[in-house]
Amino acid sequence: MKKFIDLRSDTITQPTDDMRRAMFEAEVGDDVYGDDPTVNKFEKLAAEILGKEAALLVPSGTFGNQLAIFTHCRRGNEVILGEDTHIIQHEVGAAAVISGVQLRPIQSTKGEMNPLHIKERIRKEEDDIHYPSTGLICMENAHSNGRVISLDNMKKIYEVGNVNNVPVHLDGARLFNAAAYLNKDIKELTQYCDTVNVCISKGLCAPIGSILAGDKKFIERAKKARKLLGGGLRQAGFIAAAGILAITDMAERIGEDHETALYLAKRLKEFKNIKVSHDFLHINMVFFQLKDFDSIELMEKLLKYNIKINPEEDGLMRFVTSYWTSEEDIDILINKMKEIMA
Amino acid sequence: MKKFIDLRSDTITQPTDDMRRAMFEAEVGDDVYGDDPTVNKFEKLAAEILGKEAALLVPSGTFGNQLAIFTHCRRGNEVILGEDTHIIQHEVGAAAVISGVQLRPIQSTKGEMNPLHIKERIRKEEDDIHYPSTGLICMENAHSNGRVISLDNMKKIYEVGNVNNVPVHLDGARLFNAAAYLNKDIKELTQYCDTVNVCISKGLCAPIGSILAGDKKFIERAKKARKLLGGGLRQAGFIAAAGILAITDMAERIGEDHETALYLAKRLKEFKNIKVSHDFLHINMVFFQLKDFDSIELMEKLLKYNIKINPEEDGLMRFVTSYWTSEEDIDILINKMKEIMA
Amino acid sequence: MKKFIDLRSDTITQPTDDMRRAMFEAEVGDDVYGDDPTVNKFEKLAAEILGKEAALLVPSGTFGNQLAIFTHCRRGNEVILGEDTHIIQHEVGAAAVISGVQLRPIQSTKGEMNPLHIKERIRKEEDDIHYPSTGLICMENAHSNGRVISLDNMKKIYEVGNVNNVPVHLDGARLFNAAAYLNKDIKELTQYCDTVNVCISKGLCAPIGSILAGDKKFIERAKKARKLLGGGLRQAGFIAAAGILAITDMAERIGEDHETALYLAKRLKEFKNIKVSHDFLHINMVFFQLKDFDSIELMEKLLKYNIKINPEEDGLMRFVTSYWTSEEDIDILINKMKEIMA
Amino acid sequence: MKKFIDLRSDTITQPTDDMRRAMFEAEVGDDVYGDDPTVNKFEKLAAEILGKEAALLVPSGTFGNQLAIFTHCRRGNEVILGEDTHIIQHEVGAAAVISGVQLRPIQSTKGEMNPLHIKERIRKEEDDIHYPSTGLICMENAHSNGRVISLDNMKKIYEVGNVNNVPVHLDGARLFNAAAYLNKDIKELTQYCDTVNVCISKGLCAPIGSILAGDKKFIERAKKARKLLGGGLRQAGFIAAAGILAITDMAERIGEDHETALYLAKRLKEFKNIKVSHDFLHINMVFFQLKDFDSIELMEKLLKYNIKINPEEDGLMRFVTSYWTSEEDIDILINKMKEIMA
Repeated sequence: MKKFIDLRSDTITQPTDDMRRAMFEAEVGDDVYGDDPTVNKFEKLAAEILGKEAALLVPSGTFGNQLAIFTHCRRGNEVILGEDTHIIQHEVGAAAVISGVQLRPIQSTKGEMNPLHIKERIRKEEDDIHYPSTGLICMENAHSNGRVISLDNMKKIYEVGNVNNVPVHLDGARLFNAAAYLNKDIKELTQYCDTVNVCISKGLCAPIGSILAGDKKFIERAKKARKLLGGGLRQAGFIAAAGILAITDMAERIGEDHETALYLAKRLKEFKNIKVSHDFLHINMVFFQLKDFDSIELMEKLLKYNIKINPEEDGLMRFVTSYWTSEEDIDILINKMKEIMA
Repeated sequence: MKKFIDLRSDTITQPTDDMRRAMFEAEVGDDVYGDDPTVNKFEKLAAEILGKEAALLVPSGTFGNQLAIFTHCRRGNEVILGEDTHIIQHEVGAAAVISGVQLRPIQSTKGEMNPLHIKERIRKEEDDIHYPSTGLICMENAHSNGRVISLDNMKKIYEVGNVNNVPVHLDGARLFNAAAYLNKDIKELTQYCDTVNVCISKGLCAPIGSILAGDKKFIERAKKARKLLGGGLRQAGFIAAAGILAITDMAERIGEDHETALYLAKRLKEFKNIKVSHDFLHINMVFFQLKDFDSIELMEKLLKYNIKINPEEDGLMRFVTSYWTSEEDIDILINKMKEIMA
Repeated sequence: MKKFIDLRSDTITQPTDDMRRAMFEAEVGDDVYGDDPTVNKFEKLAAEILGKEAALLVPSGTFGNQLAIFTHCRRGNEVILGEDTHIIQHEVGAAAVISGVQLRPIQSTKGEMNPLHIKERIRKEEDDIHYPSTGLICMENAHSNGRVISLDNMKKIYEVGNVNNVPVHLDGARLFNAAAYLNKDIKELTQYCDTVNVCISKGLCAPIGSILAGDKKFIERAKKARKLLGGGLRQAGFIAAAGILAITDMAERIGEDHETALYLAKRLKEFKNIKVSHDFLHINMVFFQLKDFDSIELMEKLLKYNIKINPEEDGLMRFVTSYWTSEEDIDILINKMKEIMA
Repeated sequence: MKKFIDLRSDTITQPTDDMRRAMFEAEVGDDVYGDDPTVNKFEKLAAEILGKEAALLVPSGTFGNQLAIFTHCRRGNEVILGEDTHIIQHEVGAAAVISGVQLRPIQSTKGEMNPLHIKERIRKEEDDIHYPSTGLICMENAHSNGRVISLDNMKKIYEVGNVNNVPVHLDGARLFNAAAYLNKDIKELTQYCDTVNVCISKGLCAPIGSILAGDKKFIERAKKARKLLGGGLRQAGFIAAAGILAITDMAERIGEDHETALYLAKRLKEFKNIKVSHDFLHINMVFFQLKDFDSIELMEKLLKYNIKINPEEDGLMRFVTSYWTSEEDIDILINKMKEIMA
């Protein structure tokens, strides 16, 4: 198998050898009948780890977020969330199409929403005949801008939701990264949401899938909605087998990717035309400005050395580290970059 | 008929005697068959006045805006508009429910959107598999905050739309007010939009209805969509008969309401506990802060004198003048307020 | 005003002189504020006449039906109704667009659904993860095929709904015609439904509008949904003023239109190439087959004599009588037809 | 691993040992980036086998059908399909929720729709302002009633679609079964549709997934819609690896399951209280009536012998054979049934 150094994202992570073996040996069944022992084990374990009553395996992170919105909201509800979140930026407008809800994006400062701004925007069915009613608040942690939202911010937002009887969903695609950065058990984060979506196919290296967790009643309703949305899978135990290792072994070591990212950031300082966004360097993503060199040219030239990167987006480069990125890989990368940009 | 001084809104305007007479004498027919001569005359006239190829009578302003969104957009499109506009604030979340579109509200400064902010948010189908594509930009003029958007701002926003092949809709519920304030023919405003919605039931005094205008092809498609949304009316000529006077005689005199508003603002200065928002005093709406007196108490006490006002919303009072508000009414109001708040 | 004999539909009915006068004199207000005394009077009266707790004025029959579906159902519900009903045939697919519900049309025999067929199709949320749940049953009476559904059929369908906790909506666009045919008070019909939609702009001659009636809680929710759908009107008292006469004076006399239809049917027997569908002749609509003559030619030639008819649809001609159709009109029609088809 | 004889469905099929091995060894990548070589190989091969330009791996059969509807139709379109098909019966009402389309179910006789009935129901945008326009016709082959639709019926329905410019989608969840029954290459079936959905997780034994195939332009648009619906997967090569064997080796042998079904039917004749529906015995599903014995009791008692069956649905029992059902299993089943029902 041709080996790449791949820094485009942590979605590109290959499963580990342990995962392949677990998949090979997985005992599976028809999960639509509730018959898949590995799925059942995985969902039980995921619920425990996330501190929720129940959990559900879904095909993707987008699926998990959209399923949460669909299950929490009635059509016509309003969903308050940060303007720069994945749900509004990178889910193809799904919430309006599938759930018929109105997104109400608000400014976020480095990924954190001001609880007062949320409070001001909460609207209730009975308040005014012109108002939709707020059906959900969505947080994102770790934020896709590279930062981890503080526990305090999460807590305050959750309280605004609670006081106003509005449920709070947490897009925790990289929640284990956030927990590692905060050096907290993941349950300390999930205590501040009603439901949470956690991807197992990013830094956790499982090939496919995401977890949606919440209370039993919610998950029961989500299960039916998952069928409606075409996410009822059959012998999903193969995915679950990798998932079990993802949320145990891999979750434990995810902080190492942050170390690698720090090492990468350090080495990038060697370039005069690169300015790392240190303020956004919490997890496994290094954002930086590249000056005086075309990012597409860099991408194309690195590819010849089997190094994959994305070009800049909105003026920023992003390199992402993972289980599959070693310090040696970083050294190779830096050398090649020096060569190319010389 | 019991006479009120009603400052709650200009939606409360009674039709004029001329309107009642025109309605009484209207020649009508079944408009679903295209048989209503008064509707046909009204729609032709409205199109001419608004400088568009065709126009359509619809039941309400919300209906007109939502019909525009429905006709312009495919489900899953994104609609860029000001965070403080009627469509996002006061249309019950309809755009997501009916059209399945994602609203993308952006900050507005005193009602004006920065064209650059719009440009940054325009997304195209082909750009990225994660992106919805922008289907529409919506402006609002006069803005419901009381201000009139400048022709220059309209022009620049329209250009951003044109350059990017994104249509621009104008929520002109009070567009005749805006034109009067700018002292321009209304066509100088409508040149900067592809479609426009104008209410005839606000300051123009018609009892019911709104106009949606645009090019012929658009209006043809909107006509079918109007039927789907339950807005295909039968002998609508009664509404159109009032509408004809609304967009001619009444449109001509609408600036008088602005005079009345200025007079009202002037008189409100006599109160030490009132601070008028002069910066938002362009048309027939006077916004002010009321200190040291409960707005609900004021409302209830004025009602005893047959004066109707709304209580404060988000810390602001709003008094709206209309054809039915004379300077004498203002004097009576001011006297009663003095009495009450003494 | 040019006088036509118009047999295309009863939607073409002009308001009576009494209606015009009532509209002229109507006391009106802003109905979104609940301030229109004529609307309030009309809605109270309509509720009483229809034997329901509350009623709501809406812009059209399609609006009324769709509002009922929207208010009764959650997205994803299934609605059981006759395959030949207005909702499935003539409402532009609105139910899926607006309410996200799955129509489940079943065979109807001369407009009557077999209660057993309904029962078989009722599905419950909890039954099977693959099933949508039935949210509504819709009846139509009088049916647009010209027949009146029997009280017995209505009763049985209502019972199926009740037993299974599925609400029953009645599309009663021509419900007063049905009551007249059955020679019953309209409340004897409406007792077999939870909500009912009755048009005032068909045989009852009001220019615009429809009534949606049901219990208070339902109507309260429908009121908010009416706003979302753009049907919140302002000085709607003009419509209500005509509506009051529609559901009193005009409702009382509607049986006369059936007499006229019978007279028309009798006279059509004089044509050898015409075969009247006597089995579908219950109300004011005469269906017949026209042989050996092109219906479009007939339409065009009659128009020259100021007589309006529609061409055949699915092989059938339909002539509709109304308040504005006299026996003399029928005689003129028959004579002209004889001339043309000679 | 505990061994069951499982006759509930062919969705319960475990992957073969070859499949597990192929999955273990699969070369995978991030399919959202188009980087998964095994997915690419699978999609190319599937397109070739199905005689279409392009193919797309999706998470489930419901996902594939709904994605086809979503990609073919605009909101408000009408979809003509058989009243007894999977899409209307077993997809939770998804088409209205996700795509906003109106299903127009028509009678099917033993699973075959009459092309004339379809033709009569096709409606065009421009025909009538009251009409939705037909956006899609859906066939199902093999039908979930156990029968295979004839090539002639498929051809005639496809022609009705073509003549009227309405695309035709084929729900071919068990299309390889249909091809085996007809003893035809699968391309002879798929020539009569524009798009086709084929499940790899039923009789073909892959653990998860379905294929949607059509022309390049359609698949390109479907790919974006798949992302919106949350079906964009990452290292999906594991599923594709099993899928490659499913549509080659397993597709070749699928007729064997029909032999097993015939053997099962033959043996069921030994019961006096059982009446096999021979008319619906085309593929791997045996439908029969069970008299004088409670199906739930039978189910529960067989389970004690590690035999899984479903209880009757709508008065019919269904036993399904698969790769994992041998004649010996049938013999064991029959013996146990005799014991239990003695």
